[in-house]
Amino acid sequence: MADPLVTLTTDFGDDSTYVAALKGVLLGVNPAVRILDLNHTLPPQGLRATAVFLTEALPWFPPGTTHVVVVDPGVGTQRAVLCVEWAGSRIIVPDNGCWTPILRPGDPDPVVHRLTESKYWRPTVSSTFHGRDVMAPAAGHLTLGVEPAALGPRMDRWVRLELPRAKVTAHEVRGEVLEVDRFGNLISNVPVAALPAGGREYAVRVDDQLVGLKVRTYAEATPGTLVALTSSNGMLEIAVAQGSAAKRLRAEAGTQVVVSF
Amino acid sequence: MADPLVTLTTDFGDDSTYVAALKGVLLGVNPAVRILDLNHTLPPQGLRATAVFLTEALPWFPPGTTHVVVVDPGVGTQRAVLCVEWAGSRIIVPDNGCWTPILRPGDPDPVVHRLTESKYWRPTVSSTFHGRDVMAPAAGHLTLGVEPAALGPRMDRWVRLELPRAKVTAHEVRGEVLEVDRFGNLISNVPVAALPAGGREYAVRVDDQLVGLKVRTYAEATPGTLVALTSSNGMLEIAVAQGSAAKRLRAEAGTQVVVSF
Amino acid sequence: MADPLVTLTTDFGDDSTYVAALKGVLLGVNPAVRILDLNHTLPPQGLRATAVFLTEALPWFPPGTTHVVVVDPGVGTQRAVLCVEWAGSRIIVPDNGCWTPILRPGDPDPVVHRLTESKYWRPTVSSTFHGRDVMAPAAGHLTLGVEPAALGPRMDRWVRLELPRAKVTAHEVRGEVLEVDRFGNLISNVPVAALPAGGREYAVRVDDQLVGLKVRTYAEATPGTLVALTSSNGMLEIAVAQGSAAKRLRAEAGTQVVVSF
Repeated sequence: MADPLVTLTTDFGDDSTYVAALKGVLLGVNPAVRILDLNHTLPPQGLRATAVFLTEALPWFPPGTTHVVVVDPGVGTQRAVLCVEWAGSRIIVPDNGCWTPILRPGDPDPVVHRLTESKYWRPTVSSTFHGRDVMAPAAGHLTLGVEPAALGPRMDRWVRLELPRAKVTAHEVRGEVLEVDRFGNLISNVPVAALPAGGREYAVRVDDQLVGLKVRTYAEATPGTLVALTSSNGMLEIAVAQGSAAKRLRAEAGTQVVVSF
Repeated sequence: MADPLVTLTTDFGDDSTYVAALKGVLLGVNPAVRILDLNHTLPPQGLRATAVFLTEALPWFPPGTTHVVVVDPGVGTQRAVLCVEWAGSRIIVPDNGCWTPILRPGDPDPVVHRLTESKYWRPTVSSTFHGRDVMAPAAGHLTLGVEPAALGPRMDRWVRLELPRAKVTAHEVRGEVLEVDRFGNLISNVPVAALPAGGREYAVRVDDQLVGLKVRTYAEATPGTLVALTSSNGMLEIAVAQGSAAKRLRAEAGTQVVVSF
Repeated sequence: MADPLVTLTTDFGDDSTYVAALKGVLLGVNPAVRILDLNHTLPPQGLRATAVFLTEALPWFPPGTTHVVVVDPGVGTQRAVLCVEWAGSRIIVPDNGCWTPILRPGDPDPVVHRLTESKYWRPTVSSTFHGRDVMAPAAGHLTLGVEPAALGPRMDRWVRLELPRAKVTAHEVRGEVLEVDRFGNLISNVPVAALPAGGREYAVRVDDQLVGLKVRTYAEATPGTLVALTSSNGMLEIAVAQGSAAKRLRAEAGTQVVVSF
C-alpha cells in the first residue's frame, strides 16, 4: 500500500518557517507520511479565496487523502478545529467555513468531529499556531490509523460560508469573477450549463464591457482578442488570447459578469 | 523498488488550482506516485524559457523518471500531445517544440508516440486543460506499467524549436544571454570550450559594455566587481560578486554577448 | 521503514534550474529519497536570514532526517563543506556559520566532518555549484548508509555566526526584530520568559513607537489594533490584528525592540 498522503494549504508563504514546522511535526508523528504542498500563498486570513481554492483543488484527490488547511484568523480563540470526513478523505480545518463550499447542494451533511483530545496534540499548545500544535499532529495520527471519532466529539453545527452564486432569470444571468488565474483569465461563477444552448445569441459583459467573441479554445482567437469560453470546470471564462483579460478589463475577484439573452 | 517518480513543469503558478488538479489526477490514477515540483512559474506560454529550463533541469534526473511538462499555448487545437522516450525516461509534453533542445546535436531521434488512446485519459476532456484531462492521467498510467506504444501511434515528425546558438568565427564568438538566475548572473550560450585556451587574451562584452575581469569563482573578486567566469554548465557567465550583473548591465535573456580575441 | 527524508534549503529561487539539479542528482544517487522543499527564497547569500530560518525550522524534524543547506557565498574557495551530526539528524552545509545558531547555549559541540572524499561527489566538480557537485551527492550517499566519518576527516573548529541576543538589565530588555512573517508580524529576539510576570507593568517600544496593548491571541484585539503577544516560539511578537505591523511601524529585521519596566 502507498504511504499515506497529506496535503497542505495555508496562507503562511512558501518560504515560511511555519510551513517547515508543519512538515516537521507531521513527520515526527508519522515518518512515512508523503507531504504535498497545494498552496501556501492564499491571501492572509482570506477565507473566501481559500474556499474558492478548496472547491477547485480538493475534488481531484483520491479517497484516503488527509488535507490540512491552515487559514485561521480565529487562532487562539474558542473557535473549534474540525475533522471533516468528506468523499472518503479527511480535512483538518478551523471552524471558519472555508471548507463548506466543497459540499454540493443536496449532498448529505458530512461527519464532523471537533478536535478536543489533547493526547493527539503537541504537549504544549501555543495561542498563535494551532496548525503546528493541534492540526498537524492530529493529521499525523489520522494517517497512523486513529479514527476521527477518537479526536473528539461529533458536531452537527459549524460555520458555513457561502460563495456568491450567479442569479439566473429569464433573460439574464448575473454573476461575478470568482478568481483570476496566472494568465489573467477571469473564471466566473456563471455555469455555462445555465446559458442558452443551440446557437441562441447571448451577450457577455464584464463590468459593462462587452466581450464580443465566443470560442472553444484560446488558440481559436487572434492573439490579443477578448473572448468568452468554457473554463475547465464548466464555468464561463473571459480571456484574452495570449494576453491578460484581468489587465485589459481591470477586473478582479468580485467584478460583475452579466450574460443577457 | 522505489515508488515511481513524476516531475511537474508548468506555467500555472505555484499556488494554482491547476497544479493541485494535476497532482490529484495523477494520484487518482496511481496513488503510489511520488510527485516533484520542478517549476510552475515559467513565463505564461513561454516556450523558449521552457526549453532553456528543460535543457538544464531534465538531464540531472535518473532513468525511469516520468516528466510532465504543461506549457501549452495550443491547448484545445489539433496540436498533438507527445510521449517522448529519452535517456531512459519519459516526457509527456504538447507538440510545441519546447522539449527538443534537450536533444544534443548528433543524438539519434528519440522514440515518440502521439497520445490518442482516450482510455488513458479522463472520461471528459475539456478544451482548455489537457494537462489535467490527458497528460496527467497518461503519465499516471505510464507509472503503472503501461507502455508508451499503448498510448497512441508512433510519430516521426514533430515541432522543433531551436535555441539561439553562439556563432564562432576566427576572432570572435557572438552569442547572447540565455537566462538570468536569481542572483542576477547572466548565463550565456557561449561555450567556454569555444574560447581561446592557454592564457590567450580575449575580451568579453555584454551589449558593448566591457567585462574586465576573468575569475574562477565569485568569491575571487572584490564584492561589486563585474566578472566573467565559467557557469556550472560550462557556459560563459557574467556576474557581479555579491551583486547583480543583470541590474548593473541592464541585461536580460536575449542581450548580446560578444567575445573577441 | 520509511524512505529516507532529505530537506532542501537554498537561496536559488523556487523556479531555479539549480534546485531541479539538486533534486535530480540526489535521486540519481538514491532513487528512493523523499525530497522536501523547506525554502528556496532566502535572501541571496543571506547568512543571517538563513540562520534565523534554520533555528526555527530544523528543530521540528524527527531524528534521521538529512538536511541540505546551500547558501554559499564562498563557493569555489577553500571554505569547507561540513557534515554536522545534530539531534540524530545530519546537516550538509558550507562552513559559513549559518547553521551554528541552532546549537543552544550549553549544548555539547556536535560531531562535524569535513567533506573531502571525492568518491562521494560528482566526477566533475564545478567552481560555482558545490550544492550539485558535492553536497547533494554526499547527502544521497548518507541516505544509503554511508557514515559521516567516511565523507572526510573530523573537524573541531568551524565558522560560528551569532544571532543578536537581547540584552537584559534590571529595568529593560533591549532586542531587535529577528524576522518579519508573511502577515507582517514582527518576531523579536526578546524571550517572553525574560519579561516581568504576574501582572507587573511593562512598556514595549518598536523604534520608539509605543505598542499599547498586550494580548494572548491576535483575535482578542479589534482589527487594526497594534498589539504585543507571545510568538509561537516564546518570543515577544508585535502584530496588528488583521493587518501588518511591519507596514504600520515601518519595521524590518534589525529594527530595535525595547521593553522597559
